[in-house]
Amino acid sequence: MSTKYVYTFGDGKAEGKADMKNLLGGKGANLAEMNLIGVPVPAGFTITTEVCTEYNKQGKDAVVEMIKKEVEASIAETEKAMNAKFDSKGEAFPLLLSVRSGARVSMPGMMNTVLNLGMNDETVKIIAEKSGNEKFAYDSYRRFIQMYGDVVMGVEAEGDEHDPFEQVLDKVKEAKGYSADNEMTVEDLKAVVEEFKAVVKAKAGKDFPTNPWDQLWGAVCAVFDSWNTERAILYRRMENIPEEWGTAVNVQAMVYGNMGENSATGVCFSRDAATGEDIFNGEYLINAQGEDVVAGVRTPQEITIEGSRRWAERKGITEEERKATFPSLEEMMPELYKQLDDVQQKLEDHYKDMQDMEFTIQDGKLWMLQTRNGKRTAAAMVKIAVDMMDQGYFDAKTALLRQEPNKLDELLHPVFDKEALAAANELSKGLPASPGAATGKIVFSADDAEAWAEKGEKVILVRRETSPEDLKGMNAAVGILTERGGMTSHAAVVARGMGKCCISSASGLVVSGKSMTINGREFKEGEFISLNGSTGVVYEGEVATIKPSLEGDFGRIMEMSEEHTRMYVRTNADTPADAKTARDFGAKGIGLCRTEHMFFEGDRIWKMREMILAETEEGRKEALAKLLPIQREDFHGILKAMDGFGVTIRLLDPPLHEFTPNDAENQKEMAERLGVDVEVVKAKVDGLHEFNPMLGHRGCRLGNTYPEITEMQARAIIEAACDLKAEGFDPKPEIMVPLIGTVKELKMQADIIRTTADKVFAEKGAKVDYMVGTMIEIPRAALTANEIAEVAEFFSFGTNDLTQMGFGYSRDDAGKFLPIYVEKGILKHDPFQILDQDGIGQLVEMGCAKGKATRSDIKLGICGEHGGEPNSVEFCHRTGLDYVSCSPFRVPIARLAAAQANLR
Amino acid sequence: MSTKYVYTFGDGKAEGKADMKNLLGGKGANLAEMNLIGVPVPAGFTITTEVCTEYNKQGKDAVVEMIKKEVEASIAETEKAMNAKFDSKGEAFPLLLSVRSGARVSMPGMMNTVLNLGMNDETVKIIAEKSGNEKFAYDSYRRFIQMYGDVVMGVEAEGDEHDPFEQVLDKVKEAKGYSADNEMTVEDLKAVVEEFKAVVKAKAGKDFPTNPWDQLWGAVCAVFDSWNTERAILYRRMENIPEEWGTAVNVQAMVYGNMGENSATGVCFSRDAATGEDIFNGEYLINAQGEDVVAGVRTPQEITIEGSRRWAERKGITEEERKATFPSLEEMMPELYKQLDDVQQKLEDHYKDMQDMEFTIQDGKLWMLQTRNGKRTAAAMVKIAVDMMDQGYFDAKTALLRQEPNKLDELLHPVFDKEALAAANELSKGLPASPGAATGKIVFSADDAEAWAEKGEKVILVRRETSPEDLKGMNAAVGILTERGGMTSHAAVVARGMGKCCISSASGLVVSGKSMTINGREFKEGEFISLNGSTGVVYEGEVATIKPSLEGDFGRIMEMSEEHTRMYVRTNADTPADAKTARDFGAKGIGLCRTEHMFFEGDRIWKMREMILAETEEGRKEALAKLLPIQREDFHGILKAMDGFGVTIRLLDPPLHEFTPNDAENQKEMAERLGVDVEVVKAKVDGLHEFNPMLGHRGCRLGNTYPEITEMQARAIIEAACDLKAEGFDPKPEIMVPLIGTVKELKMQADIIRTTADKVFAEKGAKVDYMVGTMIEIPRAALTANEIAEVAEFFSFGTNDLTQMGFGYSRDDAGKFLPIYVEKGILKHDPFQILDQDGIGQLVEMGCAKGKATRSDIKLGICGEHGGEPNSVEFCHRTGLDYVSCSPFRVPIARLAAAQANLR
Repeated sequence: MSTKYVYTFGDGKAEGKADMKNLLGGKGANLAEMNLIGVPVPAGFTITTEVCTEYNKQGKDAVVEMIKKEVEASIAETEKAMNAKFDSKGEAFPLLLSVRSGARVSMPGMMNTVLNLGMNDETVKIIAEKSGNEKFAYDSYRRFIQMYGDVVMGVEAEGDEHDPFEQVLDKVKEAKGYSADNEMTVEDLKAVVEEFKAVVKAKAGKDFPTNPWDQLWGAVCAVFDSWNTERAILYRRMENIPEEWGTAVNVQAMVYGNMGENSATGVCFSRDAATGEDIFNGEYLINAQGEDVVAGVRTPQEITIEGSRRWAERKGITEEERKATFPSLEEMMPELYKQLDDVQQKLEDHYKDMQDMEFTIQDGKLWMLQTRNGKRTAAAMVKIAVDMMDQGYFDAKTALLRQEPNKLDELLHPVFDKEALAAANELSKGLPASPGAATGKIVFSADDAEAWAEKGEKVILVRRETSPEDLKGMNAAVGILTERGGMTSHAAVVARGMGKCCISSASGLVVSGKSMTINGREFKEGEFISLNGSTGVVYEGEVATIKPSLEGDFGRIMEMSEEHTRMYVRTNADTPADAKTARDFGAKGIGLCRTEHMFFEGDRIWKMREMILAETEEGRKEALAKLLPIQREDFHGILKAMDGFGVTIRLLDPPLHEFTPNDAENQKEMAERLGVDVEVVKAKVDGLHEFNPMLGHRGCRLGNTYPEITEMQARAIIEAACDLKAEGFDPKPEIMVPLIGTVKELKMQADIIRTTADKVFAEKGAKVDYMVGTMIEIPRAALTANEIAEVAEFFSFGTNDLTQMGFGYSRDDAGKFLPIYVEKGILKHDPFQILDQDGIGQLVEMGCAKGKATRSDIKLGICGEHGGEPNSVEFCHRTGLDYVSCSPFRVPIARLAAAQANLR
Repeated sequence: MSTKYVYTFGDGKAEGKADMKNLLGGKGANLAEMNLIGVPVPAGFTITTEVCTEYNKQGKDAVVEMIKKEVEASIAETEKAMNAKFDSKGEAFPLLLSVRSGARVSMPGMMNTVLNLGMNDETVKIIAEKSGNEKFAYDSYRRFIQMYGDVVMGVEAEGDEHDPFEQVLDKVKEAKGYSADNEMTVEDLKAVVEEFKAVVKAKAGKDFPTNPWDQLWGAVCAVFDSWNTERAILYRRMENIPEEWGTAVNVQAMVYGNMGENSATGVCFSRDAATGEDIFNGEYLINAQGEDVVAGVRTPQEITIEGSRRWAERKGITEEERKATFPSLEEMMPELYKQLDDVQQKLEDHYKDMQDMEFTIQDGKLWMLQTRNGKRTAAAMVKIAVDMMDQGYFDAKTALLRQEPNKLDELLHPVFDKEALAAANELSKGLPASPGAATGKIVFSADDAEAWAEKGEKVILVRRETSPEDLKGMNAAVGILTERGGMTSHAAVVARGMGKCCISSASGLVVSGKSMTINGREFKEGEFISLNGSTGVVYEGEVATIKPSLEGDFGRIMEMSEEHTRMYVRTNADTPADAKTARDFGAKGIGLCRTEHMFFEGDRIWKMREMILAETEEGRKEALAKLLPIQREDFHGILKAMDGFGVTIRLLDPPLHEFTPNDAENQKEMAERLGVDVEVVKAKVDGLHEFNPMLGHRGCRLGNTYPEITEMQARAIIEAACDLKAEGFDPKPEIMVPLIGTVKELKMQADIIRTTADKVFAEKGAKVDYMVGTMIEIPRAALTANEIAEVAEFFSFGTNDLTQMGFGYSRDDAGKFLPIYVEKGILKHDPFQILDQDGIGQLVEMGCAKGKATRSDIKLGICGEHGGEPNSVEFCHRTGLDYVSCSPFRVPIARLAAAQANLR
């Protein structure tokens, strides 16, 4: 840990810089950096993330003691830079402060912020006097009490009660007949201040602190505390942010966008965060504080003329009306707009990425409050990187590393079918807050969204506006629709981050309880609507969807991935259709073709059941003979769809009881159909029952107790391959024996396969190349991979089962404790989603190393679901696998992740 | 592989020697060695075990070609040494041969033997002429056809038919009114020979071979083939003999104990194989071939006067009667007896172990046919080693290494209670063929023995005499009773090897179908009898048993083990009674005290169920508070019983559904008793259902989701320990958290335990030492043992679960494939019985090494059932464990195995 805890910035100087994000947080590092490159930033200082870690260890008192001197010195610096005085007794303009969190990565809305800190009954008067704007002074003071009371002192609504501060405001407004806060007079505000103080006293049980220093320490500690609120923890878990990182605290001189009509505040982006277009854009409000823009309470105006016009067009507003009611900053303050445009260009050039900036214009002077790399949709992520590469900002390597592989998912899923869309009934138009298409049943609370989604329903969460409390519900929904809020509202920002479709400020939408009206028409909970997040249009009912295009910028990212990768990507597919989809996505072969699914379809299950009922090898062979032509046809189709690429076919894996009915009725049907007594069926089913089927009679244990099954499957594969070759194709079957734990198990199965293949070759007078290998999915297989490689020509790591057995977690049952484990931090992630590199990863590494020691050219792959998860793909690359295999829709993600792994 | 395939011996010379057992088999090596030390042995040669391996690979023709020249040269050597001629045309006495198997270790009765080889219509006449004993010649000839027909040509009874050769003999005897074979005249025998040849022709479909060379090759190959008979494979599996070892073939000149009244044959032991007493003993028959003694068809006589007198005493026969009907060899042939006594002493001195010898006296000359270390009872094993050590044969180290740890089991189990025995009704007296006490229901076939035992019945197998086909049944029975056969009969030898109680030649016993009469009284299948294998007495009904004594020679072996061991032995015990038993057996602490059993007894289950039904933490705590005093009392008892030694207490491990009823009736009872609706109980039970409970919500996963359970258990343990300390005891609790997979799981549990302990200490104003550690039973725990050791003060390897998860075998379900796997040779052993050192062993090694790397003084033990299995104990020693823990009755076995491991 460093011995310096506080870093100052201001007036074109700074102790920190951009690359000190780990220590200063993203915001703090950028505030310092902006100073260094000549961007106007209010002075202040950053308390490091290391202090947060100490705070969590040692607690408040020790930490305040530790950093007190440095903070005091930094306040003095800030006073100098801003020509103001903290705790002013009138000797200078009072220095008011903002106190904000700032972790390494942005966690929007997750942690606490206090503004206008330093206000008390004395300073408010000095400010009123020195600014000549008494209303502004008291408005700032009441805002401060409200925010500090909430954030630091924990004053909040109890039960169903409305927010106690808002109650005060509502009462005043009602009494006076005001419709908005800003209609309140100075006298109103003075009264509100007193009432607010009374609320604090009543709710918090103590007086509101008047000493600015007490206020400061309270706020700093509240920011540290907010690192561990429930919602921050949830967000960290969703975004894989380690708890140890901690947050920095940025203390900065306040500047005011609400000092009058010559003041403004806004948020802007150097490129379009939704589409990626290279267009400067953003929103602002005259005479407002920053949170007014972000919170979505007042609908903000566009910064540029172009943006403003686009907006008006979408809303169906005439140019004149627009100019009158929603003029752009470019029109309202052309000079300041020009300064802002220069600054945004300077910042994008400097950071070489799309910037998300906050600014305030105080009495005609522009201040930048924050800049950071902007969150963006998947489409924007792809387009911005490709454009900036083309514009010479960086090379292909950087463009690839700029991609978040998981986000590509957004681009792979269906969009609305055009014809269906043409026929669809348009209900409303709102802001295209987050692109994509979604169809679902409407629900009106986050809890309902979660509950319905758990039951398997696709839901659209409809809210007046969203808040961080809605996070879980947003996560559960397929789309979000809000009555209020702009493109930078909470709903919009979070939805884009999640890759969820979102429409905000839908026109004519009124939400009330568990129903909504859209332009007069009522919709109840559970009714279907559809959202086009890319256009902002809300449709009635369900609208059919189609596949997205994989050309253009997306195609270029895929091509570049191809050039920069070592590992290739296969897919897990059981049908020719899936194989085709995956091949279109760039899969080079099949890493896992499960054969058991083939036994369920249509009539096949009856032949399978006949086999299971047979008491003798002869009887089983007879039933299997009926399955042979069907299997051969299956393999013919799949090998053909993957012509020229390897297809790993796994022999029968599940326990036989998965093919038999458990209920009396179906057992009766089975008995009748197969012409046996129902007692025979019942006895067989009972006999197949297992206590732990996961660890039971399945996989190669079936093939080694009933070799005739393996023989039939091997014959079907090799016959199909021979037929295809005769038809001029190039089939490459790789026969995979599942659940191997000892080399002798594999040896026995391999002998059957090779003997069968030789027989087929003799019968057909032809030969095809094929391989015999195994899944490494049992811990003992990894431990003895050197022996197993004596027989196996390839290994495919079955990390699902390896995780189940290595952890001793039944995937079917882990729901009872895994979520609690993740919540309590016992596990960083669900190991079925992200490969546990520390533990299970050792088995994979061991399997690779031992396998190669025996057979240097052994083919190594992974076919567990981790094969499409970027962190795990990177691990596979490091471990030296030849390929990863994943579900068709994960193929592009895996391809990108593989390239990134290679570049890192 | 060597290039020499055949090793000759004879006339005081030999190409092999005793330490070439791997190549020549036990018998062959000893035949060579006996020659070298001047013991009279018929000449012959040994075909090596390597040839057997080649035979299994290359088949008959290639191998005959390979060894033909060497065999021919060896026959010539043998002819010279014995002054006889193979395939004699009259130029010399015909050389007749025995052809016997001989593996590295003795496999009595398991493989094939052919005697009198070389006989045909021509040689029989030469022998008749040259020996002057035509009856002997034709008797030998008919025996040869019978044996060769059976063993080499596969002539055997079909269906229910009696043996076809025996049918011929029976017919002759019936026609002539003979009661025994030896009443047949030369003419009878000549007719039998012709009829035997006709039987061969009819059954085998070809003529009996007349060329002695053809006979020889046929017999040699039959011996090789017999290595892979079903019963040999079964025996190998039971005795852990690898298939690769193969058998040697010993071809040796025949000598005849049936050449007249001046000839005899017998089996003898240099010490008593049942008791271990240093008394030369054995059995013989005048004018008989060796198999007559072993097969138990004629009841043989004792060799020594002392033995003969003891025998008569047991049978209640007067000295005169004895002398007349059962005289000893010592009396019948005093000079030859003296020679034999000298030879046995020489052989025991030479091999420094109790010898099991076969001899034949041919026409007044003594020949030794075989010597080997004798099989013995556990009592004899212990006594002989201790005696020989005392007699200066070897040191304590050798005495210890001479013990088979598993055999000690025989000495640990109950013997009859003396009072119960005094009251018991004696039914019969037979030979004390294998010691021990057994009580059970009688069955009359091996199949029934197996079937009844599977149903959980204790059965006594009653047979006229046993054969190798009865092996499985003998294994399933608790004791064996036979109508016929001596101390060296098949039943006696095999039973002693198995450590089963056996009585042979029970007087007055007549077995017939599924009933028997003992001295006229009938007993039907399923009736109880009791056997005292140490005295030979058969009792009516069930007789109560008591614990055996652990003093004397056994005690000395245990003391010596103690001196020569590094590892100590703990026990797995859940009750003070078990703890006490184990302590008496020498256990130094408890390695696994399962707490869940404590929740089932009596009323406790209801409190447990109350806890399970509780929906809130409060409710659970309330129910747990009721369990606390009960648990505390349990721990008080166990810690007291193990006063001064460490007691590892495992926190609650099984899934909660093990405590709830599954059937409607019991659910109803539970609902009534706990005052809730039955639907509530049903819903709870359904909610607890798991697909794979083995991998489900159990172990520390319970403690980490319901911390209050851990808290209650920790409190009960620490309170009990504090109370005991106050009472002047020295309790050493070691709290073990089960099913740890990640260090954080343990950390959370350890925090609860330590916090609770501190609270108890504060409440009691006292302190006790305790440890917190974990089981390493999940593969990931072994892989990350370095991290886990940061928190764990000890590791106990739970090799049961480690095997389940490492192999992916559910112990409850593996019955469907494990036996087949062992049968097919996929697995050498059942890995739940003998630790899989190659695979699972790696996890144990890894766990130890990684654990020590983090915490050099970490205490390491094993508490899986492997902890009492000698091979696994040796592995634990090599791997550096501090202790092994096993069930109380395995403690002495583990102590001995630990000492042996240290000595090796």
